Amino acid sequence: MSKTQPARGMRDFLPADIRKRNYVINIIREVYESYGFEPLETPAVENLETLTGKYGEEGNQLMFKILKRGEKLDLANGEKGLSDLALRYDLTVPLARVVANYRHELPKFFKRYQIQPVWRADRPARGRYREFYQCDVDAIGSTSMIVEAELISAVCEIFQRLGFEDFVVKLNHRKLLSAILDVCSIPKEEQLNFLVILDKMDKIGEQGVVNELNAFGFTKSYLKYLDLIVEIDKHSLEIAKQNDKNKSWIDKLETINKLVLDKFTTFVGENNEGKKSLNELRNIRNLLISDIAKSTVLIKPSLARGLSYYTGAIMEVNVPDFAGSLAGGGRYDGLIGMFGKESIPACGLSIGLERILVVMEERGMFDKLIAEGKLKADSADVLVTVWSGETIGESLKLANELRRSGLRVLVYPEADKMGKQFKYADSIGVKTAIIMRDEEIAASQVKVKNLQTGDEETFSREEIASKIKA
Amino acid sequence: MSKTQPARGMRDFLPADIRKRNYVINIIREVYESYGFEPLETPAVENLETLTGKYGEEGNQLMFKILKRGEKLDLANGEKGLSDLALRYDLTVPLARVVANYRHELPKFFKRYQIQPVWRADRPARGRYREFYQCDVDAIGSTSMIVEAELISAVCEIFQRLGFEDFVVKLNHRKLLSAILDVCSIPKEEQLNFLVILDKMDKIGEQGVVNELNAFGFTKSYLKYLDLIVEIDKHSLEIAKQNDKNKSWIDKLETINKLVLDKFTTFVGENNEGKKSLNELRNIRNLLISDIAKSTVLIKPSLARGLSYYTGAIMEVNVPDFAGSLAGGGRYDGLIGMFGKESIPACGLSIGLERILVVMEERGMFDKLIAEGKLKADSADVLVTVWSGETIGESLKLANELRRSGLRVLVYPEADKMGKQFKYADSIGVKTAIIMRDEEIAASQVKVKNLQTGDEETFSREEIASKIKA
Repeated sequence: MSKTQPARGMRDFLPADIRKRNYVINIIREVYESYGFEPLETPAVENLETLTGKYGEEGNQLMFKILKRGEKLDLANGEKGLSDLALRYDLTVPLARVVANYRHELPKFFKRYQIQPVWRADRPARGRYREFYQCDVDAIGSTSMIVEAELISAVCEIFQRLGFEDFVVKLNHRKLLSAILDVCSIPKEEQLNFLVILDKMDKIGEQGVVNELNAFGFTKSYLKYLDLIVEIDKHSLEIAKQNDKNKSWIDKLETINKLVLDKFTTFVGENNEGKKSLNELRNIRNLLISDIAKSTVLIKPSLARGLSYYTGAIMEVNVPDFAGSLAGGGRYDGLIGMFGKESIPACGLSIGLERILVVMEERGMFDKLIAEGKLKADSADVLVTVWSGETIGESLKLANELRRSGLRVLVYPEADKMGKQFKYADSIGVKTAIIMRDEEIAASQVKVKNLQTGDEETFSREEIASKIKA
Repeated sequence: MSKTQPARGMRDFLPADIRKRNYVINIIREVYESYGFEPLETPAVENLETLTGKYGEEGNQLMFKILKRGEKLDLANGEKGLSDLALRYDLTVPLARVVANYRHELPKFFKRYQIQPVWRADRPARGRYREFYQCDVDAIGSTSMIVEAELISAVCEIFQRLGFEDFVVKLNHRKLLSAILDVCSIPKEEQLNFLVILDKMDKIGEQGVVNELNAFGFTKSYLKYLDLIVEIDKHSLEIAKQNDKNKSWIDKLETINKLVLDKFTTFVGENNEGKKSLNELRNIRNLLISDIAKSTVLIKPSLARGLSYYTGAIMEVNVPDFAGSLAGGGRYDGLIGMFGKESIPACGLSIGLERILVVMEERGMFDKLIAEGKLKADSADVLVTVWSGETIGESLKLANELRRSGLRVLVYPEADKMGKQFKYADSIGVKTAIIMRDEEIAASQVKVKNLQTGDEETFSREEIASKIKA
């Protein structure tokens, strides 16, 4: 007997899993489409040369490479002789390839979303898989802050529609951070290392960050920025706690964000990059129109996001009971042009589908959706039983009628004891069974059995669909 | 500059492609769910040992294998040292693995559909890709002919809903063919070779089949079956052509199928397997309830389907303008138990998604759907233009209002010349633009421009959403 588990770090999705995943994916898709983002799909397999060198040493280690076939396989020639293709590692490099390849067909502003799996040969751990979905949304071709504002509005709407009531969208600006580090006399070439550590503030606290920065050998000049962060956090907390009936949460958040921007302004002084970045942040703030965006977007001085390619605003969606972010992104004006000669402006967000599913499951949000009837938990609305070999045709006929009225209908595949048929319905979560004995068929009637209560009721053939729907 | 094409034989799907694909997939999904089939997804990557030996020598050649990583890679040890994983080659072996692995969780009758890509390193050709979607639907666990009847009904409904008006569902029975070949004294061990050639009847005609059979060395004893096929075809054509106003197409097909069953009955005589198979075919015919099934299912003596694993009824969906089948399948009671000890009955169909897309494209069916408003061809219902830097907020506000009413709304990402904004809308197929100058904003109005006619009309902010929808 062979092993029947899925490959290491990969998952089978049984029907109940798929229904939950599709529920989340459909909301993401609907919201993005309402903002004019269009679907894109690229192949799971890319030429190795397309991916090579794009993800650093780690990426080279974790990439799944595909063995050359037939005569092309050349064991004597090292890695080059072994592999010519690799599995998709993220959705950004394929997007860059698509933008380069179809540049004459794509619109000058290309807004696309892409929801597809990627593969990484990482060590599997809780919540970390070797095949997992990414859900990217990017707007290509414009440097306007309208792009940032719309991306943030859309992501807020998604989390709201998914049923999250306590998420925060943290906002900062990579070039503002760069200006601040200039002011602190941190050399440009060490700033990314600094930001990677700063980004851990929420996880390891101020003292943890100071320890790591010291261990890394940074001079103490950065301390005045950490002091500012702590001061801002303290003030923000005070404002948030104010017990003023005339001030809504949106008003308070407005006050906090204004405070942060003011402190930043003083800090960067005449630094040009700093002033420009602050203007962009103000601009984004002003363009957030919806209440849900106004009440969730918080300018956060410690948000840095570790990746090197960001060139402007950065953002992240967080909830209190999950350590990482549920979505993150920002402006990255240098990356999308990697396969061409020109630099192409771009701004995007990646939504952590797998993480969202984990949090929603842990919070019982799916159970709530099922209880509210917003998410189906059963494979059918009704089971049509089969009374005898002679009545099979009548059962199939009724099933077809019910399907035509929009119901999902299972027919028990054999004439069998009624008890067995009910038990089967029960085992798959179907709550209603239909019985058609010879006498019901003769009278153009059907008997409906509620499998939870055991109650039975008889209806005419005409009214049955509407009765079951109710 | 790097190469930016997708890998050989693979495809990028731009937004217009995805919309068409999703249109077809959604219909398939909806119909199957209405029959109580549930979604299943398995990983793209399987353990090599799960797939090895399941697809014959050809499969071994065409399978994409994944290179071992790090220290596991062992060049000195042949293929075993090179690869431990492979890409999914079909959806049947993963289904068998899932059925074995979750046998205590799955219902005793497991009806699942699975729509996912598979990968084969085949030589790319017109309509043949190295990554392509399969769309399988299978009912596991029952030997009842209700299963066959429901699978056929569902597939008929799918093709009808997709807009096909000229498809035929060919039906035959593998064990009936086996009985017939017994009667013709074709040895059991040569029958599969015979069937592979017989299956070409519609492509190469009777003489072509005879030539191939002779070349293969078959004795002439099979000729009486070919004669029967030709005779049946002749009679069928006569019946179909009858100019009798009182006879509907369904009546005629009924007559043809009865004729075929009668001729078969005489042919197999007292052969037990033959009689049993004929009863199953009669049974399936009687259980086809819907008009669309009754008017498309034709018992076809030359239908054989080449694959070795079929054990009962076999079926195929054909249209006149495509040489291969658009869907095909049958009963295969021995295969799903491959990972366990027991044999598990199963019957299923594979719908040729890629082929359906090709035929629908060639026939202009998508254009028709777009013209009828059933398929979206544009990325948004409306473009909200931006009049000036000062009015951006108002444009965003209006966009949000329109989205809340269910419209897909693009906002031009910059304050720019109106002409440029209209041109952009035009380039992406958006037919309506909204203009909000200072005077419109002051009067709580918006101007709507029809980009096809150039007509402009002014509406109040309240009525705008309903006007655009109309």
